Parts: sequence; structure tokens; C-alpha cells
Amino acid sequence: MGDRPQRDFGNRTPLEAAYTPHMDRLVKNGWAGLMDPVNPGIPPGSDVAHFSLFGYDPYKYYTGRGGLEAAGAEIRLAPGDVAFRCNFSTIDDNFTVIDRRAGRIKSGTADLAKALTGMQLEKASNVTVDFVQTVEHRGVLVLRGSGLSRHVSDVDPHQVNVKVLESKPLDNSPEATRAANALNEFTRRSYVVLKDHSVNLERIKHGEKPANIILSRGAGTFPQLTPLSTLYGVRTACIAVVALVRGICKIAGMDVIDVEGATGGLDTDFMAKAEAAAKALESYDYVLLHVKATDVAGHDGNFDAKKNAIENIDKMIGKLLDTTDMSRTYLAVTADHTTSVSVKDHSGDPVPLLIAGPDVIASNIGKFCERTVAYGNLGRLRGFNLTPILMNYLGKTSKFGY
Amino acid sequence: MGDRPQRDFGNRTPLEAAYTPHMDRLVKNGWAGLMDPVNPGIPPGSDVAHFSLFGYDPYKYYTGRGGLEAAGAEIRLAPGDVAFRCNFSTIDDNFTVIDRRAGRIKSGTADLAKALTGMQLEKASNVTVDFVQTVEHRGVLVLRGSGLSRHVSDVDPHQVNVKVLESKPLDNSPEATRAANALNEFTRRSYVVLKDHSVNLERIKHGEKPANIILSRGAGTFPQLTPLSTLYGVRTACIAVVALVRGICKIAGMDVIDVEGATGGLDTDFMAKAEAAAKALESYDYVLLHVKATDVAGHDGNFDAKKNAIENIDKMIGKLLDTTDMSRTYLAVTADHTTSVSVKDHSGDPVPLLIAGPDVIASNIGKFCERTVAYGNLGRLRGFNLTPILMNYLGKTSKFGY
Repeated sequence: MGDRPQRDFGNRTPLEAAYTPHMDRLVKNGWAGLMDPVNPGIPPGSDVAHFSLFGYDPYKYYTGRGGLEAAGAEIRLAPGDVAFRCNFSTIDDNFTVIDRRAGRIKSGTADLAKALTGMQLEKASNVTVDFVQTVEHRGVLVLRGSGLSRHVSDVDPHQVNVKVLESKPLDNSPEATRAANALNEFTRRSYVVLKDHSVNLERIKHGEKPANIILSRGAGTFPQLTPLSTLYGVRTACIAVVALVRGICKIAGMDVIDVEGATGGLDTDFMAKAEAAAKALESYDYVLLHVKATDVAGHDGNFDAKKNAIENIDKMIGKLLDTTDMSRTYLAVTADHTTSVSVKDHSGDPVPLLIAGPDVIASNIGKFCERTVAYGNLGRLRGFNLTPILMNYLGKTSKFGY
Repeated sequence: MGDRPQRDFGNRTPLEAAYTPHMDRLVKNGWAGLMDPVNPGIPPGSDVAHFSLFGYDPYKYYTGRGGLEAAGAEIRLAPGDVAFRCNFSTIDDNFTVIDRRAGRIKSGTADLAKALTGMQLEKASNVTVDFVQTVEHRGVLVLRGSGLSRHVSDVDPHQVNVKVLESKPLDNSPEATRAANALNEFTRRSYVVLKDHSVNLERIKHGEKPANIILSRGAGTFPQLTPLSTLYGVRTACIAVVALVRGICKIAGMDVIDVEGATGGLDTDFMAKAEAAAKALESYDYVLLHVKATDVAGHDGNFDAKKNAIENIDKMIGKLLDTTDMSRTYLAVTADHTTSVSVKDHSGDPVPLLIAGPDVIASNIGKFCERTVAYGNLGRLRGFNLTPILMNYLGKTSKFGY
């Protein structure tokens, strides 16, 4: 939701330009401030940002993207297992990358995954291979074996017309060396297994690029998070479509609520999400309502689409307020990071934050935006302060000391 | 002193409602801000909060309540010793707790303590036992022996009509297992030693509940704090009645000044405290003047009593200002935590802070309260920032780096 002033749009941010009567009313009567999702100037990924928003210091708890991909795909990792985010890709005989998405392959990946799972590695003989395809050209690789580290580099070069990379250990531990060796062997072997697979022979016959190698990146282990329910004695749920966010919510112990019409895009059904959140609040203490649309518009560099998404979010909040007993509910409105329409990617800017509810102190700010909340009564917080602050109002924090 | 807006009192906090001309003048000409005693949203105990206020990060230095109880009772702990906060309690033959305070026993506890001290444990044969009664039904147990850990659970179930708990190690260290075993053996043996003790036979004869077991909680070791006097080269003193605060002050190297009429309650002699503080400032560089009354009123949920206590504090400050050379003195006014009259317990809210003195920058805030200082010129600080800020003004901080 946050952004920078845009010269082509009257030096306003999308949030400033948007008509947001509900958020404006909330910020006036609530706490207001800026929040650094992780640390000032550091652009967080959505994964790291959500760790922080849920109160887990990502510097302490984040263990790489692969572990979250595995969680999202319902794969359980044991200590010593390492997981990777993967693409089915196309290379030539010299291991030069032709297409990182194998012509955006859509079918047959389940069969290809089956051919990879259980693969016997020869050098890394104590490592077993698990491979699950997820959406389109994407999948998750799990290398299982006691003592594999996530501190290894990617084999995916993240561009075409260059060779597949050798994974290298990123520290001096034997665990990292073992994991890099296993990943390199798996990568070479995946080419051997996949290049003449019937699915690929069929694709070649139809003039499609074969999915003849697995390119892995983002090594990760399973994050050891104590669920919010255990930490605070609360029932928690999330309403989110994006797989990564759902995965983190699950790891944090939340129930994931599906909403018909929610898409993770600009066309998501905002009102259906509001209704689901209001309903969830009847049986849960803590509900995350996640909207992806503003981030999508930011990546697209589309000011008007972002402004429009913010106005839809405001209507969604209006609906939520209409159907929720606000005399006993706290509502925080914020973003997990800034995706500025001029940067077209995550940036390290602070995000605006408001906290409304019965026991807060009114900021008397007239409009909810980046410019005003910088002078707000919350001061400048960090992402992982948010959940403890909310739990404090719910009376769910335990005393530190006596 | 801090609180939340109270609907039944014009949506004001006790501090907002109170008439505080002296603090208002100080805040207008001084720094103003909000301070999180430990971290936003985290309710601190008074022990942890005072660690923080004195500049010791409690996440690093706090080692449990038991160590502070021992310090308060003038018992020195060696490394590897572990201390507990204890009650003389009453159980039945099945180890079910009848009364956690043994009918609020008032006399004979010194004799009972003597019978426990030096007890030979059979299984934990390398552990020696020290027991000191303190006030009324309370005491301190020290288990001495190389390598005992404080990471063990309580045997005190904190309620009646349930069985005495087994202490369990809270981590995998042999030190924790050893400490839990020793505590369990001591607890069982305390029953054997106490149940037929002449003090208890006498109590039973008079229809009083026997103090037939020691229930222990809050395992702690001695906190390794470098005294403020060493850290900053200052002479430090405190004026405080509450035993826990006095204990922490002593550990931080402060001289404890007794004041006649100071009670730790609503009826404390505020003016006598002000006079003692003004006098102490003649020979000390740093004086803590602690008032418990606002916390007492908060726990009682009594708005008017809290407002009244704040007005008494304001008069106390007025007296202090009259008798102190403010051209060379810095005065910080704050709280160690919020005890809201609506929560009736410590909460994780930030507390108001003002710092007055010759070299400060004026905030121009008209009234000292939670609402105004949120917009103050200090921003939002953390508790352990306070002492270094004051020492900086005194010219007592040493350079970090060259």
C-alpha cells in the first residue's frame, strides 16, 4: 500500500491520491505511525515481511525460501533436510539455459516429478530425493539426509543464454559442502532422467521446449516457529490467496480460510474477503486479511491500478467495520512492504500503520497516508512490534519478569 | 504513572486528569517522548523494567526472580548456585495444597528456616541447602552446588486444591536436570522436616494451619551486572521502599537511603522522599526516587487514587525543584511500566517520559501526559536508553570507538 510521491501524479502517492474515508476515520481516532517491516532501508521479501508482521524477528527465525515452499506444498521437512524452489527449465546439450520456464509448461509435470522422486544419488549416497511439482513450471526439491545445510548457492543462473551454475557451499561447514555436492549431482542427473522422458519427447514432437532440467534456487530449511496460538493462547486464522503467505500462516499455526472469488490479483473479491474476515472474527481472536492487489499494481508500475486497489481496500474495510463489533475489536491497517510504482519492485521504505480499537489514543490525523502518519503518535516501529502490540491490547501477552 | 484513556472518566487517563503544574512546566521546557520499558507490547515485571531503566538490557542480563530475592535478603550467590522465591505453605498428606501462605503465618518462621538450612540431600548429595525466611510467609531457598541451572519449572502450583508440582528441567542441560532433581528432593524433604516441627505442632494445637512445606518458584541466579558506579564513574543512590526495587538497586551498586514515613503505599510521605532526594543530590551524582503508589492504585483499578497519587508526585517534584540547583541537575520523570486502572495489572503500553535540565531542547508541550508526549521531541525510546541519555548530559559516558 505504501509508496513514494509520484511527480507525474501531482507529487502524491497512490494512498494520498485515493479516496479512503474509512481508513481516514480510523486513523483519526487511532494510533498512527510509520513502520519499517524489517529495518530502515531494507527491502523485505513477502516471506521475511510476514515473519516480521507476525512477531518473529526474521534475523532470528527466517531459514530461507525453500523451507516455506515446502511448507506451502504440504511437505514436512525434518532437521537436516534442505528444500529448494525449482523451475522445470530447458537447456541445450552444453547445459546452456534456453528457457527458465520450459515454454511455460502446464501439463505433464506430475509425471516428470514422479521420475525424479526417489532418485538414487551415487556420490551423495546417503541423500534421498523428493520432488513435488506445484503450479505451472514450478516445483519443490527436497534433499533429505542427516546434516544438510541451507548455506549453498543456487544452480539457477536467473537468466538465459548462460550455463547452469555449480552450487557452492557458502560457509566452511561439512553440511554445506555435502548439500552443494548433492544439489549438483541431482541437477546433472535431472537432465539425464528428464531429457528423453516421454512427456518431453511428446513436447519436442509438438515443437514445444522440453522440460529437461530442474533449476533450483533459494535453499531453505523448515523454520522453527512457536505458533502464535501457543505463544499467546489465541485462535488464529488467515484469509490469503498467495501460496507463500498461506504457507507462512500455516507455519505460524493459523487456520487458512478459503474465500470464493479471492484471486490474489486486482480482480479479487474484496467484499467477499471482508465478509469472511467478519465471520472469522466470531470464532478467532486474531485474523489476518491479506490483499495482494496493491503489490501487483506496484510491480506493474501502474499508479491508477494501485490507487483503485487502495480504494477497494477502503471499501472492504468499510464493510468489515459495518459487520464487526468494534467496541471489542482492534484493527491494524498496514502493508508488508512498499512496492512503489516507480521502483516496480519491493523497496526498503517504511510503510504506514494505523491501529484502531477501544483503548487506543486518538492521533487526530485527518488522512491516512505516508506523509501524515510520519507525524503520528505511534512513532516509528518495526514490523515485529505489531503483533505484540495487538496482543497487549487483547490482554494476551505474558509478563516478562515478575 | 502511564495509563489508557478511561471512558468513565471523560476518556482521559489519570495523568491527563491530574493537576500537575510542576511536571507540566518541566515537560514544556524539556525533552518529551514515549518510552517502551522493554519492547513495544511487552508487559514487564518491575524487576525487568528496573533492569532496563538502569541501562541493563534485560534480554541479556535478567537471570530470574530468585536471584533478586536472594540479593534482597542479603544472600550472596556464587556462580552455579540457584535461588527461589518461596512460601511457607500448608499441604495435606497427599501433597495437595491447602493454603499457599500457611494461614499467613507471622511467627516461628525463623525456627522453621533453621530446621531447613544445612539439610543433607541424599540423591543430590553435592548440593547444600540454605533457607532464609524474609517477610511473613515468604522466604528464599538457595541450592548451592557447582553447576545448577535456573532453567527449571516451579513446584508451586500457584493455586490451591491441586497437588504440589514436580519441577522439570526447561532445557536439555545436565545443570537443569540436576537443579530440578535437587528442588524436588528438597521439597519432599521440607515436608518431612516441617510437618512435626514444634512450631507446627503448636499451630495445630491452636487451630492454625501448619507451615508444613516450602513451595518454590521463580528460579534465578545472581545477575552479573557491572555497577553503574563502575560503568560511569558516578556515585549512585536510591530512595525506594519496595524490597525488589531495593534489591536491584543494590545489585546495580547503589546506596539505599531509608526515609522515615516512606511506605510503598498510597500513604507514603511524598514530601519526606523529596527532601531525602534533594539531600542525596548533594553527595551523589545519580539518585533514583521510586514511588510505588501509582502502581498500587493501578492494581486496585482505582482511577481517583491513581490521579491523587500523581498529584502527590507532582507536589513532591515541586518540593524537589525548590530545594535543588536545577542549573546543574537533570531530572527524568517516567514510569517503569503501565499499570492501567482498567487492566489492573502491568501492560505492554509505552510510558510517558520527560527529561528536564540545563542543556535540553524545549518540547513546548503544554501538559505532561500520554497523549501529548507521543508527539514529543524525544521520539519513542526504549527503557535502557534512559540511563545512557542522562549519563551523557552528566558527561559520564565513555566513547564507543576512537
